[in-house]
Amino acid sequence: MADLTALALICSLTPSPAPSSSELMAQHVLKELEDHGAATSSLRVVDHNVMPGVQVDMGDGDAWPGIREQILAADILVIATPIWMGHPSSIAQQVIERLDADLAETDDAGRPVMYGKVAVVAVVGNEDGAHNTFADIQQALNDVGFTTPAQGNTYWVGEAMQTVDYQDLDSVPEKVASATAGAAQNAVHLARLLKKEPYPAG
Amino acid sequence: MADLTALALICSLTPSPAPSSSELMAQHVLKELEDHGAATSSLRVVDHNVMPGVQVDMGDGDAWPGIREQILAADILVIATPIWMGHPSSIAQQVIERLDADLAETDDAGRPVMYGKVAVVAVVGNEDGAHNTFADIQQALNDVGFTTPAQGNTYWVGEAMQTVDYQDLDSVPEKVASATAGAAQNAVHLARLLKKEPYPAG
Amino acid sequence: MADLTALALICSLTPSPAPSSSELMAQHVLKELEDHGAATSSLRVVDHNVMPGVQVDMGDGDAWPGIREQILAADILVIATPIWMGHPSSIAQQVIERLDADLAETDDAGRPVMYGKVAVVAVVGNEDGAHNTFADIQQALNDVGFTTPAQGNTYWVGEAMQTVDYQDLDSVPEKVASATAGAAQNAVHLARLLKKEPYPAG
Amino acid sequence: MADLTALALICSLTPSPAPSSSELMAQHVLKELEDHGAATSSLRVVDHNVMPGVQVDMGDGDAWPGIREQILAADILVIATPIWMGHPSSIAQQVIERLDADLAETDDAGRPVMYGKVAVVAVVGNEDGAHNTFADIQQALNDVGFTTPAQGNTYWVGEAMQTVDYQDLDSVPEKVASATAGAAQNAVHLARLLKKEPYPAG
Repeated sequence: MADLTALALICSLTPSPAPSSSELMAQHVLKELEDHGAATSSLRVVDHNVMPGVQVDMGDGDAWPGIREQILAADILVIATPIWMGHPSSIAQQVIERLDADLAETDDAGRPVMYGKVAVVAVVGNEDGAHNTFADIQQALNDVGFTTPAQGNTYWVGEAMQTVDYQDLDSVPEKVASATAGAAQNAVHLARLLKKEPYPAG
Repeated sequence: MADLTALALICSLTPSPAPSSSELMAQHVLKELEDHGAATSSLRVVDHNVMPGVQVDMGDGDAWPGIREQILAADILVIATPIWMGHPSSIAQQVIERLDADLAETDDAGRPVMYGKVAVVAVVGNEDGAHNTFADIQQALNDVGFTTPAQGNTYWVGEAMQTVDYQDLDSVPEKVASATAGAAQNAVHLARLLKKEPYPAG
Repeated sequence: MADLTALALICSLTPSPAPSSSELMAQHVLKELEDHGAATSSLRVVDHNVMPGVQVDMGDGDAWPGIREQILAADILVIATPIWMGHPSSIAQQVIERLDADLAETDDAGRPVMYGKVAVVAVVGNEDGAHNTFADIQQALNDVGFTTPAQGNTYWVGEAMQTVDYQDLDSVPEKVASATAGAAQNAVHLARLLKKEPYPAG
Repeated sequence: MADLTALALICSLTPSPAPSSSELMAQHVLKELEDHGAATSSLRVVDHNVMPGVQVDMGDGDAWPGIREQILAADILVIATPIWMGHPSSIAQQVIERLDADLAETDDAGRPVMYGKVAVVAVVGNEDGAHNTFADIQQALNDVGFTTPAQGNTYWVGEAMQTVDYQDLDSVPEKVASATAGAAQNAVHLARLLKKEPYPAG
């Protein structure tokens, strides 16, 4: 029986069922999380009608409240995003904006509702921008209450100005696979610690 | 008769007609551009069905091609964006993603189609994040072919962790008004120079 | 008896004994860490001859190996930096560069030597740039093996284009004091968990 | 006779005469600038005793005032920097900090002293971080008064997590050479326009 749950939000600009390098990278992270005992699920955010805004619920037709329930039920959140122009995708930024509302939401002990959850960031791009993308996403998730495990990221990008996709690689480079495995292992370890001994109320 | 045209893309998350601090800041920039002889227009991107993606036209129902025509017709592009979690809004990032397609589009002389246009970035937020927002937007627009005038930005943010909006201020602080005026003046000067003597073909 | 140790590296551009807002903010963080049972120390990096480079020891006269010993002996690392032009100070970036060498240094179990340590980032500036500064410093420390506690940052900046320093404030704003206290509390909790149950070897 | 002058500040962490990929990239940019009629010079900042601080002159022994005179005499400034941990080098950030003082320095017409100068950013790294490095350096230079030409950057980085240097390549990839040539051509064109018709006084 899995003692932890992990949810991957895939922030590709491309709706299903078209293939997505972000989804592939998310699957690689989730596979590692499963090997360490987590039950996992994932969704492509662009497949859902997430409305622009910074409230928990933007009203009629907004798909975010349903996604938020899945985040609240998870111990580990994986944000998988492509790089566009050196930045996280607009969909990833939209996820961050919707999570912004949870800065003001607290549990019975007065802690932000996202406290104790662990975040992993997974990034793919043709070229350049992974570190900036981690930095932006980690900082935002950390502001909202997520904890970042040691080396809690993984990524692949090609050489400068190249156009190959992660999903086009014959095989995952060993260093990338190792980063993916390490991030997952550390996330699971940290999530178990925080589940057993949550952050104290302020 | 105006010899230049300027277009402001307002990247608020809030649809019209609700008030928007980004729109107010855009109006302040456009007013200065008009005083220097530019004909101006603006639109809130969130009011239009801009589809996710990185192609010039994402197909049926996509509002981007119409917006892109307006950009192509303008000499000066103003991007006005709120700050969310320290970053440009998801709408601003979406604009950048849609402009990405124009890296591959060239004019008859083989120059990128956006060459010779001048960009101004205008940013508002409750607190913190303006410089990073400039940096991200300027870099992306520059990659696509826009030229950035000296001190080509303006912004307002409040003190750390505060919640007042630009539109709630009794008056625009003098330094902010001065930055707005300077960015506009330099943009107009540069746009005239580049209109008269375009970048050479490569 | 303290069961944890914390070290603050103050990344002001100004040598001692001149007053420094970064140092003041570091003291506020350290005071909170002490209240939670940590023994603390601090140093201003600019007072020491840290040589440019990315090796553990850059040779004759390099003060970094001594500072690195203090980091290795600490459970919690506080990086306190001013903002210059919206970025971490050059001294903070230099600290990051020197830590880069530790990506390749491992303990007896094959884990990076910085694994299990917890990082807090404390930022001050006249205006704007704190979130970007967190993002850059957290991402770099995380890459090297530090863990970031929930809301593991604190900061103060003034309104846009203002010139007041943190050390000039009559009192620390309540929200800032609360952020400082929260970051410290979470850092201590996390450091104790990771000390008791370290990340597994890969 | 050259009608323009260009200065490259090489922000490698490595003192001369050791080889430097940043210096090689700077030479490639300068060669293009010369082909377009500019007289060029360069220096490695780390070879000089540039003191920490944000004043025009930090006092006894400070090498910055001499470097600043060379910047003031140049029409085009090239900042060439390696990427460390996804960021501009600490030396590049130090250059930015020293230029910060020039926000307050004005010419006889009341314009910031750096107005009318054009900036090019050249970046090299083993892997990832070029776009963020451009963004940070461009934004800072633009704040001080430099103008950024269309596509005013060039860079090379390898695939994710690789360790090859720019100076180790058998040849410069064609796309990189093309970016270098384009940035230089646009910088020269813009510098000539701004020299002939400077920005107006405010």
